[in-house]
Amino acid sequence: MQEFAEYESLTKRDLGAKNHDMHRNGRLKHLIFGSQLNTKLLEKLFRSADMIRRLSRDPEGNRRLRDLLAHRRAMLYFTQPSTRTFLSFMAACQILGITCNEVRDPKTSSEVKRESKLDSIRMFSSYFDVIIMRSQISDYAECCAYLMNDLERNQKRSVPIINAGAGSDEHPTQALLDAYTITRTFDFDENSLQHDSRLTELRAKYPDLTSGMDNKAYAFCGDIGRGRTVRSLASVLSQYSNVTMFFISPNQDALKLDDKLKQRLVRQGVQVVELDSLDATHNGQPLLSQIDCMYMTRIQREHNSESTEAELTAMDLSPFQLTTDRVEQMKDYAPILHPFPRDRVIDEIPTAVDSDPRAMYFRQARNGMWIRAALLVHLFDAADSLFMAYSDVIGK
Amino acid sequence: MQEFAEYESLTKRDLGAKNHDMHRNGRLKHLIFGSQLNTKLLEKLFRSADMIRRLSRDPEGNRRLRDLLAHRRAMLYFTQPSTRTFLSFMAACQILGITCNEVRDPKTSSEVKRESKLDSIRMFSSYFDVIIMRSQISDYAECCAYLMNDLERNQKRSVPIINAGAGSDEHPTQALLDAYTITRTFDFDENSLQHDSRLTELRAKYPDLTSGMDNKAYAFCGDIGRGRTVRSLASVLSQYSNVTMFFISPNQDALKLDDKLKQRLVRQGVQVVELDSLDATHNGQPLLSQIDCMYMTRIQREHNSESTEAELTAMDLSPFQLTTDRVEQMKDYAPILHPFPRDRVIDEIPTAVDSDPRAMYFRQARNGMWIRAALLVHLFDAADSLFMAYSDVIGK
Amino acid sequence: MQEFAEYESLTKRDLGAKNHDMHRNGRLKHLIFGSQLNTKLLEKLFRSADMIRRLSRDPEGNRRLRDLLAHRRAMLYFTQPSTRTFLSFMAACQILGITCNEVRDPKTSSEVKRESKLDSIRMFSSYFDVIIMRSQISDYAECCAYLMNDLERNQKRSVPIINAGAGSDEHPTQALLDAYTITRTFDFDENSLQHDSRLTELRAKYPDLTSGMDNKAYAFCGDIGRGRTVRSLASVLSQYSNVTMFFISPNQDALKLDDKLKQRLVRQGVQVVELDSLDATHNGQPLLSQIDCMYMTRIQREHNSESTEAELTAMDLSPFQLTTDRVEQMKDYAPILHPFPRDRVIDEIPTAVDSDPRAMYFRQARNGMWIRAALLVHLFDAADSLFMAYSDVIGK
Repeated sequence: MQEFAEYESLTKRDLGAKNHDMHRNGRLKHLIFGSQLNTKLLEKLFRSADMIRRLSRDPEGNRRLRDLLAHRRAMLYFTQPSTRTFLSFMAACQILGITCNEVRDPKTSSEVKRESKLDSIRMFSSYFDVIIMRSQISDYAECCAYLMNDLERNQKRSVPIINAGAGSDEHPTQALLDAYTITRTFDFDENSLQHDSRLTELRAKYPDLTSGMDNKAYAFCGDIGRGRTVRSLASVLSQYSNVTMFFISPNQDALKLDDKLKQRLVRQGVQVVELDSLDATHNGQPLLSQIDCMYMTRIQREHNSESTEAELTAMDLSPFQLTTDRVEQMKDYAPILHPFPRDRVIDEIPTAVDSDPRAMYFRQARNGMWIRAALLVHLFDAADSLFMAYSDVIGK
Repeated sequence: MQEFAEYESLTKRDLGAKNHDMHRNGRLKHLIFGSQLNTKLLEKLFRSADMIRRLSRDPEGNRRLRDLLAHRRAMLYFTQPSTRTFLSFMAACQILGITCNEVRDPKTSSEVKRESKLDSIRMFSSYFDVIIMRSQISDYAECCAYLMNDLERNQKRSVPIINAGAGSDEHPTQALLDAYTITRTFDFDENSLQHDSRLTELRAKYPDLTSGMDNKAYAFCGDIGRGRTVRSLASVLSQYSNVTMFFISPNQDALKLDDKLKQRLVRQGVQVVELDSLDATHNGQPLLSQIDCMYMTRIQREHNSESTEAELTAMDLSPFQLTTDRVEQMKDYAPILHPFPRDRVIDEIPTAVDSDPRAMYFRQARNGMWIRAALLVHLFDAADSLFMAYSDVIGK
Repeated sequence: MQEFAEYESLTKRDLGAKNHDMHRNGRLKHLIFGSQLNTKLLEKLFRSADMIRRLSRDPEGNRRLRDLLAHRRAMLYFTQPSTRTFLSFMAACQILGITCNEVRDPKTSSEVKRESKLDSIRMFSSYFDVIIMRSQISDYAECCAYLMNDLERNQKRSVPIINAGAGSDEHPTQALLDAYTITRTFDFDENSLQHDSRLTELRAKYPDLTSGMDNKAYAFCGDIGRGRTVRSLASVLSQYSNVTMFFISPNQDALKLDDKLKQRLVRQGVQVVELDSLDATHNGQPLLSQIDCMYMTRIQREHNSESTEAELTAMDLSPFQLTTDRVEQMKDYAPILHPFPRDRVIDEIPTAVDSDPRAMYFRQARNGMWIRAALLVHLFDAADSLFMAYSDVIGK
C-alpha cells in the first residue's frame, strides 16, 4: 500500500526479524503475528487468564480487577466488521476497568478529509493507551507497530498495537483463545479436588493419554484454506512435541490446506494428514476414533468468487458435518471447538451437539474474554499487580 | 419463525403458563410480558425506584449506587431503532455502575455469516450478564428467555432477558414507567412535609378523591389500536379497583381499540368507554372534566399502509389535540402523560402545554430511568444491598 | 430555522447580549461562542488543564480525577460527522470519570417520528448531565442553551450545553485547545527546573522575546475564509497586547480572510497583514523569519462548490506548503500548529516536518483532551475539588 511505503523494507523481512521488533526484554510491545506466541509466553498468558477468571467469581476479586487498569483508555478500531471479536475485547477491557472507545465505520470523517492512515493512528495514540485494530489491509497493524516504535525511539508518546484480525492473514488473539481452551481441556484435573482423578479414570480406557498439549492428534475440518484461525492455531500447536494434524476439507483448491503452511508444519516436525471426509479412515481405523481434538470451521462464503460459490453450491458438504452420530465415535474427552459463528444453513455442527459435554465452542467464546484480558494485563506490564490481587483475594 | 421452531409449543401456550416460566420464587427471571407486572411486583419496583432516585441526589448515595452492580456488563441488543428507550436503559445501567455494550445494526457481520438468532444471543450471554433487547420479531425475546431457561436447567451459564419492545406487541418497561409516573402523581403527598396536606386541599374541590391508582378514570387518546404502550399500560391499570377507561381515537379501524383488549379489560371489571373526540361528553358531562389522568399518544404513521396513510392525511385530527383550552377543562391534579416522541406536525400536545404543572411527560422520561434501574436491581437480586445503601446514606 | 422561531429574537441580538445569557456569577453556564473566552476565563481553564495533566501522570492522581465527576453522565450529540473532536471529548470525560453516551446518526428514530429538535434535546437533558453537540445547523446549540435557561427559570431540570462545532461558524473548544497549546509553548520554562533558563538562552538570539501571548506575530496559512478554527482562534488572540497577524491564503474569494473578521481584529488593535505565499516578504524581510507562531490549515474541499473545486484543482498550492526548507527559516522556538486532519494529497505539512521540535500538532491534539476536561470541571463547578486533589497528590 502506497501509504505504508516508508515501512516497506520492514514488512518484507522474514518473520524472525519482524517478531524481534515487537518485543522488549522478553515482553510483548505489540501483538501482530501468531508466530509471536511462543510456548513460554503462552504459559504466562494462560496463568494470568486463570487468575482473572477465578478473581471474577469473587466480589472483592472483581473490584480488584476493575481497579487494575482503570486509568487506561482503549481504542477499538474495527474497520472490518466483526461482532464477536469486538465484543470479546470490549468485555475484556471492562473486566479490567479499561474504558472503551470505538471507531467502526471505515468512512469516518477523517478519511473523507483525506487524512493518512498513519495520521489517524497517531491521533488515536494521542487520546488512548492501546489500539486494538481489525482491518482488511493486511499490513496495517504491522505498520502501525513500526510507527509506534519510531515514536518511542524519538521519545514521543507510543502505545501498544493489538492485531484483532488483519485481512485473511492473521488473527493471533483467536489462536490464543483456541489454545487456551485446548489447554484447559487437556489439564484434565483443573476442577478436581483429588489429584489426577479424571486423568486416571480416562487412562483406564485410553492408556497413552497424557495431560497437556504434547502427544496429541488435532483435527481441523471445513474451510482449511481460507480459515486464518486454522492457520494461526496450527502454527501455535506445531510448537508442541509429537503432534499429528488431520486436515479434512472438500477437494477444492480454495478450501484445501495450502502448501506453504503444510511445509512449515512438516518442518516443525508435525505429522500432517489430509483427508476429504469425516468418515475417512487412517491406518485402517476411522479417523474420528483417533483424534484428541476436533476444530470445526465455517465455509467462508463471503470470500467466494462467483465460480467458487457455484462450485460450492453444487457440492455435497455432508461429509464435513459433525453430526451426533459422528460425535459418538470420538474419544470421551476430545473437545469440539469452532471459532464461530457457525452457518445455520450448512449446519456444520447441528445444535443437537450443543448439549454434548465435549462441545466447547461456547466456553471457547468465554475463554476469549479471559485470555484477551490476560493479554492486556501483559501489554500494560500489570502481571505483578494481578498476581498480588490474586494472592490477596484467593490465596488468603 | 422457522429458527424458533423448537420453542413453538411453548410460545403457543396461554399467558398464565408462559408467565410462570419467567419467575423463580416470586422474583422475575426475565421480563418479557406486560402481564408479568402484578401489583405486588410493581409495589416492590416502585419502592426501589424511589430509593434509587433519592440516593442519586446525594454524593455518597451516588457512589453507593455506582458500586451496586459495578461487576455487571449489559448488552443492549436493539435491532429495532429506538433512541429514547435505548438511552434510558443506558442511563439506568450507568447509575448502577453496570458497563454497557450495544449492537444496534440489524446487519451485523454474524448475520451476514448466517449465524442463527439463538446462537447470537448465546454468544452475548457468554460475555454479558443481562441482555436487553428490542426487535421487530415479536417472539424473539420470549424464545431467548426459553433458551436461557434451558441452559440453566443444564447447569450452563444463563442470563436474564429484558424485553425492551417487541414488534407491535409488548413494551413492558414502558408500562412500568407510565405506571410509576401515575403512582407518583396519585401519591399526592410525596413531597409534602405535613401529612395529607395536598390531598386534603384537593378534596375540598374533589370530595371523592383518594390517593393511589384505585377509583380513577383513565383516558387514552390518539393511536389506540397500534400503541403497544396503551395496551401494556391498560393491562397494568386494569388490576386496580373501580377503574374506568376512556379510549378516544379516530373512527378508523387501525387506530381504534381492538376487540380482544376490550374484552380482556371488561373481564377484569374495567368500565370501558369509546369516544371519537376530546370534546365528547359522557353521561351528559364533558369527558375532560371527568378524567383523573390523560394518556396521549402519537399517530404511528411509520406503520401505515399506503391506504391508511391517505385516509389519515385526509382526516381532521384536531379533535385529538390536547390544546391549552382543553387542558383547562381538566381536573387540577390530573397528570398528562405521553410516551414520546410527540409529532411536531400533528402536534397532539402543543408546546404551550409544557409549562402546565399537569404536564408530566418530561418527568415521565426521567422516571423511566429510575424504574429501569429498579428493574435491573430486582433481576440481579440486589434489592437488599440497595436497601442497605439507602439506610446507610438517607436513613442515617 | 422554523423550529427555533421562538428564539429568533434572542439569536438576532449582538454577541455582547448573547454572551451575557451564557454566564452566571462569572462562570460559564454554557459554552456556545468563541467570544465567551475572555482572558480571565482562559487563565482559569489553562490552570485547571495543567493540574489535570499533571495529576494524570500519577496513579493516585488518576484515581482522584476519575472520582471527580463520576456521578455525571454526558451526551455527545454529534450529528455532523467528526472523529477527532468526538474522541477528544470522550477521552476528556473518561479522565474525569464521566460516563459517555452518544447519538451520531442524524436519522435517529425520533426524527423519523417527527420529534422536534428541541424535544430531542430536552429528552437528552432528562437522562444526562451535560450535552456536547455538533451540528450543521449554526443556531442549534445556541437555541438549546436558551431552552435550558428557560427551564432553569421555571425551576425545571436544566443542563449545560457545549458547542463542539456548529456549521461553519464557531468551534470554541478548538480555539481553546489552540490557545492552550500556544500558551504552553510561550511559557518557555514550563518544564525547566532552573528559572528562566530557556527564555534567557533564546533571548541571546531574539532579544525582544517575552513569555506569554502578548507581543507576538501569529501567522495563519491555508483556508482562511472557511476555517472556523482560524476565526475562533484569531478572536481569542486579538485580546492580547501588541499582536500582529499574518493571513496567507490563495487569492481566491472563498479562501481569503473575510472582511467582517478583518475589521473586528483591526478594531481590537491587531495589526493585520494579508499575503499570498509563505515565501512573501514583509517590510523587506522574509515573512517566515518574523513570525512567532505558524497556524496551518487544510483546504476544506468538502465545502467546495463545483466551480471552486475546479478552480482549486487548477491552482498551484505549493506556496502554502510548509516544507522543511521553509521551516528552517522560522525562529527556533516558533510552534507549528494544525487543527488536523491534514490532507495527504495537498500535503500542507509534509510528514518530514513531524520530527521537528517545533511541530506541535500532535501535542496539540493531546492538549485538546486536557483543556476539554478543564472545561467540564469548570461547567460542573468542580474547580475547587480539582484543586484539592492537586494539593493532596502533587502538592504533598
